[in-house]
Amino acid sequence: MKIARFSHDGAINFGIIDETDLVVLAADPMFGGFETTGERVPIADAVLLAPVIPRSKVVCVGKNYADHAKEMGGEAPAEPLLFLKPNTSVIGPNDRIVLPSLSDRIEHEGELAVVIGSVARNVRAEDAASVIFGHTIGNDVTARDLQKKDGQWTRAKGFDTFCPLGPVIETEFSLDGATIETRVNGDVRQQAPLSDMIHSVAEIIAYASAVFTLLPGDVILTGTPAGVGPIVSGDTVEVAVTGLGVLRNTAA
Amino acid sequence: MKIARFSHDGAINFGIIDETDLVVLAADPMFGGFETTGERVPIADAVLLAPVIPRSKVVCVGKNYADHAKEMGGEAPAEPLLFLKPNTSVIGPNDRIVLPSLSDRIEHEGELAVVIGSVARNVRAEDAASVIFGHTIGNDVTARDLQKKDGQWTRAKGFDTFCPLGPVIETEFSLDGATIETRVNGDVRQQAPLSDMIHSVAEIIAYASAVFTLLPGDVILTGTPAGVGPIVSGDTVEVAVTGLGVLRNTAA
Repeated sequence: MKIARFSHDGAINFGIIDETDLVVLAADPMFGGFETTGERVPIADAVLLAPVIPRSKVVCVGKNYADHAKEMGGEAPAEPLLFLKPNTSVIGPNDRIVLPSLSDRIEHEGELAVVIGSVARNVRAEDAASVIFGHTIGNDVTARDLQKKDGQWTRAKGFDTFCPLGPVIETEFSLDGATIETRVNGDVRQQAPLSDMIHSVAEIIAYASAVFTLLPGDVILTGTPAGVGPIVSGDTVEVAVTGLGVLRNTAA
Repeated sequence: MKIARFSHDGAINFGIIDETDLVVLAADPMFGGFETTGERVPIADAVLLAPVIPRSKVVCVGKNYADHAKEMGGEAPAEPLLFLKPNTSVIGPNDRIVLPSLSDRIEHEGELAVVIGSVARNVRAEDAASVIFGHTIGNDVTARDLQKKDGQWTRAKGFDTFCPLGPVIETEFSLDGATIETRVNGDVRQQAPLSDMIHSVAEIIAYASAVFTLLPGDVILTGTPAGVGPIVSGDTVEVAVTGLGVLRNTAA
C-alpha cells in the first residue's frame, strides 16, 4: 500500500494511492489506522508533501556502501556510523532544494529511507521489521566543503531543505532485487542494488535503538552508494527506488 | 520570572515560581502567554520536569571555552562547532542519567542552555535576544570513549537521558557576572565565568540560524568549561549557574 501526505483545497490529509486517485484517510495512518473518509482526490489535483515529518530524529548512516566509502577516501566502518539531520531540513517531493551561499559544493546522496512506526528501544535485528511503518526515498543533501571543514557533519547535512523525502511511503516494500538510482538532469550518477548495503536495515535499527529510543515518525536514511556529485542551481535531482517511485527536487 | 514544568496529582502543567509555590499557568507560556489559573501548588508537592521538550533540535556547541578545548587536546575552532542531540535524550531535574553498558567512560559537561522562543532564521547577532524565550541549565552528558571511537559525536552524545535540562527557565537571565559550576558528589569539577565563552549566545544564534531554522522550544547548549570528568553509578552531578539554580541528577 502506498501512502501519501498531500494538500488539496487548502487542507492537508493522508491518502492511499489507488491508480490515479488518492483515497483520503481519516487520520495520519501511523497513529489513526487506515479508515477512509470516502472521499477521492485525483493525484493530479493534489500537491504531494513529505510523507512524514519526524517529531524527533532523522537518523542517518554514513559510508554504508563500500564503493562510496572508497570514493570518500576511506574504508567502510565496522559498525554503522550514525549522524542526525534535524527535522527542519525535511522537504517533500518537488519542493526546492535551497543552495546555501555558505557552501560552494553541494552534493546529492540518494538513499533508501525507513519510516519508524512504533516506539523502539533496544530492538533486536530479528524483530526490526515490527517497528517499521514503511519505506520511502530520501536525499541526504550535503555541503561537501563544510563537511570536510567542520569535522562534525551537522552543519553540512543540516541546512533547511537538505532532506527531501517521498514521494510516498510503501508499507509493503521488499529490498529483494530492488535498486536505487540517482539522476541529475536525467544523467545517471548513482546506481546500485540495495543489497550492496553493508549494514542491513535490521542491523541499523538494532544498532540505533540501542542508543536512542526511536519514535513513530522517525526516519532512518540508510546510506548512499558511489557516484555522489555536485548539484547547482537549476539542476533537477531524481532518486528512484524499485517499487517506491521517484523523488524529484530541483535546486535553486 | 522563573518558569517550571511540573507534574502534580497526575497532571502536567507549567507554573511560575513564587517563593515556595508554583503559580499554575493556563498553558505552555511559550505559546499561550502567562495567564494563570488561580491555582497554587507548593513546590514541595510537585515533581519538576524538563522545562521544555524540544520539538525539533537540541543544538550544541563544542569547544566554546578555550581551557576545555585545550584539555580535549586541541584549539578552539574559529567558528562555533555545531552538533545535535536528539530530543529523546532530554530528561528533567532529578531524573536518572542511565549509564549505557556500551560505554566505559561517561562524563559530565555542565552548560548554560538557551531556550528559543520564536521561529528564527538568519537572525543577526544584534537581534538574537528577541528570539530567546529564556535560559536554563544543561548537562551535555558524553560517552567519551565512543566520541573518540566514532569520530561523529552523535552516538556518544545522543543516548537516552544524556541531556538533563532544568530546573527552571529564567526569562530575565543576564550573563553579567554569572558563573557556571559543576559538582560531582559535592566536589567542584568545573568552574568558570560565563564570560569565558568564546562565541557569545548572540553569535551562536546568528551562526546556527544561518544553517537551520530554529523553532520555539529548540534548545542551544553553549559549551562546557574545563574540568570534564567521569561519572559512575551512584554519582550525583550538580550544575549550578548564577540566577538559574541547580540542575541535579544522579547516575545509575
